[in-house]
Amino acid sequence: MRAVDIIRKKREGVELSADELGFIVRGFSSGSIPDYQVSAWLMAVFLRGMSGAETIALTEEMRRSGAVLDLGDIPGSKVDKHSTGGVGDKTSLVIAPAVAACGVTVPMISGRGLGHTGGTLDKLESIPGFQVRLSPDSFKKQLAEIHVALMGQTENLVPADRKLYALRDVTATIESYPLIASSIMSKKLAEDIDGLVLDIKTGSGAFMKDQPKAEALARVMVDLGNAFGVKVTALITDMNQPLGEWVGNALEVVECLEVLKGRGPSDLVRLCEELSAYCLLLGGAAPGLDQGRKMYREAIASGKALQKFRDIVRFQGGDVAAVDDCDLLPRARHEAPIASPAAGFIQSMDTEKIGIAMSVLGAGREEVDSVIDHAVGMRVLKKIGDRVDRGEPLATVYYNDESRYREALRRLLESWAFSNEASPRPDLIKNTVC
Amino acid sequence: MRAVDIIRKKREGVELSADELGFIVRGFSSGSIPDYQVSAWLMAVFLRGMSGAETIALTEEMRRSGAVLDLGDIPGSKVDKHSTGGVGDKTSLVIAPAVAACGVTVPMISGRGLGHTGGTLDKLESIPGFQVRLSPDSFKKQLAEIHVALMGQTENLVPADRKLYALRDVTATIESYPLIASSIMSKKLAEDIDGLVLDIKTGSGAFMKDQPKAEALARVMVDLGNAFGVKVTALITDMNQPLGEWVGNALEVVECLEVLKGRGPSDLVRLCEELSAYCLLLGGAAPGLDQGRKMYREAIASGKALQKFRDIVRFQGGDVAAVDDCDLLPRARHEAPIASPAAGFIQSMDTEKIGIAMSVLGAGREEVDSVIDHAVGMRVLKKIGDRVDRGEPLATVYYNDESRYREALRRLLESWAFSNEASPRPDLIKNTVC
Repeated sequence: MRAVDIIRKKREGVELSADELGFIVRGFSSGSIPDYQVSAWLMAVFLRGMSGAETIALTEEMRRSGAVLDLGDIPGSKVDKHSTGGVGDKTSLVIAPAVAACGVTVPMISGRGLGHTGGTLDKLESIPGFQVRLSPDSFKKQLAEIHVALMGQTENLVPADRKLYALRDVTATIESYPLIASSIMSKKLAEDIDGLVLDIKTGSGAFMKDQPKAEALARVMVDLGNAFGVKVTALITDMNQPLGEWVGNALEVVECLEVLKGRGPSDLVRLCEELSAYCLLLGGAAPGLDQGRKMYREAIASGKALQKFRDIVRFQGGDVAAVDDCDLLPRARHEAPIASPAAGFIQSMDTEKIGIAMSVLGAGREEVDSVIDHAVGMRVLKKIGDRVDRGEPLATVYYNDESRYREALRRLLESWAFSNEASPRPDLIKNTVC
Repeated sequence: MRAVDIIRKKREGVELSADELGFIVRGFSSGSIPDYQVSAWLMAVFLRGMSGAETIALTEEMRRSGAVLDLGDIPGSKVDKHSTGGVGDKTSLVIAPAVAACGVTVPMISGRGLGHTGGTLDKLESIPGFQVRLSPDSFKKQLAEIHVALMGQTENLVPADRKLYALRDVTATIESYPLIASSIMSKKLAEDIDGLVLDIKTGSGAFMKDQPKAEALARVMVDLGNAFGVKVTALITDMNQPLGEWVGNALEVVECLEVLKGRGPSDLVRLCEELSAYCLLLGGAAPGLDQGRKMYREAIASGKALQKFRDIVRFQGGDVAAVDDCDLLPRARHEAPIASPAAGFIQSMDTEKIGIAMSVLGAGREEVDSVIDHAVGMRVLKKIGDRVDRGEPLATVYYNDESRYREALRRLLESWAFSNEASPRPDLIKNTVC
């Protein structure tokens, strides 16, 4: 078997066999197939696509490129939730403890923010002492004891994906459904889960700006999970504006604690409830969606979800006192309102631009090795459909560095668009794919 | 400017600017853009194509990636002929001296055989002492004195093409019209010529098996040459069977000497005459094609073309005596007939397979660094449309190594296909594109 023949075949749109895909993935992992052949193959995949069978075979090869978790010792269903990423997208911090409080185990392996998106691990690390680097053994031990753990990807979990993703990033081959799907699903399938709820974001702050594209990706991922015997449901949800009110790592932790305490903004509350209900349904804890929603609300009302969050913080070395006293979280030195440059109704928000402005401020990463300032961020005061007077605050920015603030402000001022007529507020949950 | 953005643009089918193409070619040449980005870009070019303006810009960037010949000191028109390659394709050895004998300068930079095709340089090197590595200065000196020289590509001529071709070879991105066209034309345009006659081969022994594809490539190359102010005419010619009767380096030299002496097989004679006539027309020496053909025939009949060949051999260090005494050329120790396994008419020949069999025998290169045996080869006795009895010789094989002979014979026996009815003989010259 020769890499050049496999590239040629894919170039001509011919379906590759599992053996051929295995040859590419294993050869790339071991270094016997050079980067320049793999990148030509990636571009051919990007432009020619992949069949369902090819996507399954690629995912399986990637999944078994490293260690695979075995949670067979832990009784009961294991369910995870994964979001394709957005701005203010913080639901994991609520869903993981809430679902675990309802009796379904949540082995959640999360990511860091990159580009305009935030990352669950960065948010958690704003809690003093919180450790996201767990060994597989301590991850399993924590799951056995409190039924929930949130950790970062280990070096040994799906190493082929890490290497392939780095190559895709520099060769303009990221935005391909089968490549995105196999990248995400190979990692999720290595978690040894029974069910997976996907939150596929669509809109100005999502990777998939158009709803039909988000739905197409959801279809590929749901089919892929099912092919591996994992129950998958995907919700297509709105990312035309930040989720909730707060953006920034410590600020989002505070907002999640509000939700866990039974408060918080209605869009965030509703999405946490809906995603949790699907987790409980797939995990077999709830017989139907309505019962799942009810179980979630009870976990919040009873304080059990908040208590589970405290358990997570304690198990992962964080300062539990910060859960009840948010003054123990990092706080920015300065805050400043953004005055609306116009009067009228908010027509749209360039949410990717808002996310980039937050990265500029220090809340996110422009490069993989950028250092995060956990304290900075913003509170969004006006969202799509809201009325605003000229000079009225659109948002409040929390910052530590004056020059970063000025650069972020310049971008933020370009992010809101106004109209004279009331724009409809976007639907939060647009579709369900299962 | 970032390579990844240029790759993305081409991936989406957007036309690249001359600046962007220059950025890629110069970055690749200097090493500042890595192989893996260039190969992703190549695959995007392969699958998305290139506009005429892009092909021109790419060709110009490649042309000026190294030294460019300046033949301004040499008076009169300069014309070259280039073939896309085939089996028994030896016309350069006749055309170069014949056209020069008619007063048009021929600065011919030729290639070596690779895969199933033969190469002009390998054929010339079967003449004892013949040197194909000339410095630009001695090349120009020879052109000034005898108006014709045949040399190999220097390290310094279009280095970007050499590097890019090597990458295309291992990433399945060879067979793209704009990439083929820019590769060939960047080298030809670096020769400082006024006219170029292209021999675009089509059929079972050509890189372009289908005539419409050969014509499409011809169109791109003719337009490209014209954009640079060079007159280009392309002939689409048959490669469904070897050209002439002989295949193999020294054997083809002998056959060309036969043509230069007024003999030789009719297909080879006709193609040499036609291509030479176009060279004389583009070079301004003949007012029309018919006059060009007549000038060619006179150069052969008068012995002036043969004398010009002697001049070339003498100038380039070869043994001139070999021109008149072919026993001084390398000769294989053994010969064996190939008996026809069937009776009937020759229906078709797998000419690529014949070429590969010749490489196996030692006449060509399977790899870039394979060593050539100049003596070995074959004489084709039966061609398409010929009648043959069972056991009658189809060809004679000339060889030095018994095991190579057996392997070549196995392939050759699979190359002829037979039918009960007389198949039409293929048209030698199928079309002209100008």
